[in-house]
Amino acid sequence: MTDDTTQLLARAAALDATDPLAEFAERFVPASGVVAYLDGNSLGRPLRATSSRIDAFVRGAWGSRLIRSWDEQWMELPLTLGDRVGAIALGAAAGQTVVADSTTVMLFKLISAAVGLRPGRSEILIEGSNFPTDRFVASGIAAAHGLELRVLAGDPLTGVSAEGVAEAVSERTALVVLSHIDYRSGAVADMPAITAAAHAADALILWDLCHSVGAVPLELDRCGVDFAVGCTYKYLNGGPGSPAFAYVRSDLQGSAEQPIWGWMGAANVFEMREQYEPASGMRRFISGTPPVLGMLPLMDMLDLVEEAGLARIRAKSHSLTALAIEAYDQVLAPLGVTLRTARDPELRGGHVTFGHERFQEITLRLWGDGVLPDYRHPGGIRIGLSPLSTSHAETLRGVLAIRDALV
Amino acid sequence: MTDDTTQLLARAAALDATDPLAEFAERFVPASGVVAYLDGNSLGRPLRATSSRIDAFVRGAWGSRLIRSWDEQWMELPLTLGDRVGAIALGAAAGQTVVADSTTVMLFKLISAAVGLRPGRSEILIEGSNFPTDRFVASGIAAAHGLELRVLAGDPLTGVSAEGVAEAVSERTALVVLSHIDYRSGAVADMPAITAAAHAADALILWDLCHSVGAVPLELDRCGVDFAVGCTYKYLNGGPGSPAFAYVRSDLQGSAEQPIWGWMGAANVFEMREQYEPASGMRRFISGTPPVLGMLPLMDMLDLVEEAGLARIRAKSHSLTALAIEAYDQVLAPLGVTLRTARDPELRGGHVTFGHERFQEITLRLWGDGVLPDYRHPGGIRIGLSPLSTSHAETLRGVLAIRDALV
Repeated sequence: MTDDTTQLLARAAALDATDPLAEFAERFVPASGVVAYLDGNSLGRPLRATSSRIDAFVRGAWGSRLIRSWDEQWMELPLTLGDRVGAIALGAAAGQTVVADSTTVMLFKLISAAVGLRPGRSEILIEGSNFPTDRFVASGIAAAHGLELRVLAGDPLTGVSAEGVAEAVSERTALVVLSHIDYRSGAVADMPAITAAAHAADALILWDLCHSVGAVPLELDRCGVDFAVGCTYKYLNGGPGSPAFAYVRSDLQGSAEQPIWGWMGAANVFEMREQYEPASGMRRFISGTPPVLGMLPLMDMLDLVEEAGLARIRAKSHSLTALAIEAYDQVLAPLGVTLRTARDPELRGGHVTFGHERFQEITLRLWGDGVLPDYRHPGGIRIGLSPLSTSHAETLRGVLAIRDALV
Repeated sequence: MTDDTTQLLARAAALDATDPLAEFAERFVPASGVVAYLDGNSLGRPLRATSSRIDAFVRGAWGSRLIRSWDEQWMELPLTLGDRVGAIALGAAAGQTVVADSTTVMLFKLISAAVGLRPGRSEILIEGSNFPTDRFVASGIAAAHGLELRVLAGDPLTGVSAEGVAEAVSERTALVVLSHIDYRSGAVADMPAITAAAHAADALILWDLCHSVGAVPLELDRCGVDFAVGCTYKYLNGGPGSPAFAYVRSDLQGSAEQPIWGWMGAANVFEMREQYEPASGMRRFISGTPPVLGMLPLMDMLDLVEEAGLARIRAKSHSLTALAIEAYDQVLAPLGVTLRTARDPELRGGHVTFGHERFQEITLRLWGDGVLPDYRHPGGIRIGLSPLSTSHAETLRGVLAIRDALV
């Protein structure tokens, strides 16, 4: 063991010893055979509470209350759970958030609705480093509506700037679609300034919050955000493919219309009317029967996030990513690995990306050894450090394993 | 107890005693406090196997394999599970069925794709008694594409006929959207003849199989069906809001394009390309991350359906609905209740609907007593008799409880 390693191990141990959130790691289901889980921003780990919640659900609400549960709770669940996501994680007052569908489907509904609110405008602005789904969905809608999809370039480390958006947005722009936190670099966009820049041109803005929600405090209401969408299976630990959430600012709801007209989003659901008339409020953004089972694990994580508090979660996230960068400087940089994430903690989210041409092959090897980062093309190893389930020691084990695999 | 009741009880007991599928009822989670569950076609009951399957999933595939499970199984799951639904329940060869999204979203994707395959045609034909979602989705698409949505009337008891479709369909018709089994009357449409009638005008056909799948043998391939969609939470017991399945005939897949472009349906998913290019085959009908947790209960029911066999399931369904009608004749008809379902067993699915002006109020009372039919506006009590979880005695208890509530 080198001096560097010894020093880093001592540092990680010291950070864990004084970590006020350290005890929360015990609330998660033990990950059998896993040395370091560094992909909490792709798939959050299940909570111990989730197994018993699901078991009670299968025997009770589903197995015994049966169809009555629709009246008793499930009809409202997309909205009540949405409100809880809004209150705990989004800075959103009640009545503006719904949980349903996949992130892709929700993006489709909200981008379509937004474009419908700006008839006569000819373009959607989107950043080039966005996750493919955002660009794909927007390009499909742009093609169908005869709009141009214009791509904004951002800085590789810090992403799209408010100045960049202010310069690009114009009276031609119907909608700006941006990720709040970049899925590769982890760059945090300046939500208040960028939202204001879009609004200055009377354009609408939609924020993709997939890599933000549950890791970074958000203030959608205060920023005057129009639309937002995000995943619940990353830092909200909802399980693989758990439903998305969508936020629509209250004053837009009356005029915003989404294109997938289903009975669950219609006014007076059980009247079985001939013609579709959208429900008032956020219900109109629901289409089909909501995925109830997939909403359960998320409830446990929301409880945990509420208990820990997003300010403390963000502080721990800073500490974990800072340690990862400190370890990078000492053990990865000398091997020619690049850092693809900003050093200023305010400018990065909960994950850090390192670059090296051998990382695709190395990721596979690490997975075999129970060290689980994500590979992001081209040549990126991304380590996602979910603050409530990840210790400093685990973070360091991950970085040291990357080093060991390189030498 | 009247003579009628005594005789009916004896008859139900005799039918249960010789029911070759009677033992299957024990495989379901006991429904605590429930006297008769008569809504298996709204929400199927959970299997005992489901609790342990989910528990193993939370600890294993999710909690310990973690992100590796995407590579190991989940990326393919919508297609492998789709193939299993196809083989066991649809009469569909592999590569034509996918499990994802809600039924509404899948209807949206498939109706959009179908309309795109018939450019220049000006109408969608749909029957008037269809479940609202089908009509709502189709009307939204018709409005967006400048098409007419033309409504076909069917017989209240037997639904839309092949002659009716043959008469209505023309060179103007892009697509015919029909329910195979009517959600109120239970009328079974003549799939081979109606599909042929649509094809004779070179129109496409989409079958809604929500009230068929798992209860009635289907032969999509043999009938030459173009598109089909259905729920998995009714007779496939997938749990509230479990994902839909969609079928697209193999030779249509190369040219059919759905409008919700997400990374999971793109070619070469992990290359994170700039431009969306649909995957080949059924994968292109996926949009976002598939709801894995919501797919688990369905797997248990597919095992059970395979073990029991759809021919035996259909035979038991005939027996249960026949007993319900026999009991209706003796105890409900004298009270002025009407029968809204065909008497010929070949012309009805797995549910039976009775009509009476007091049924809305009576349904609420029955629910309070643990007797759980569904109310369907106007004035209909629908009893859905899921063959593997429902006995003749339970069916009869339900009908007698309706009588008791009326007198």
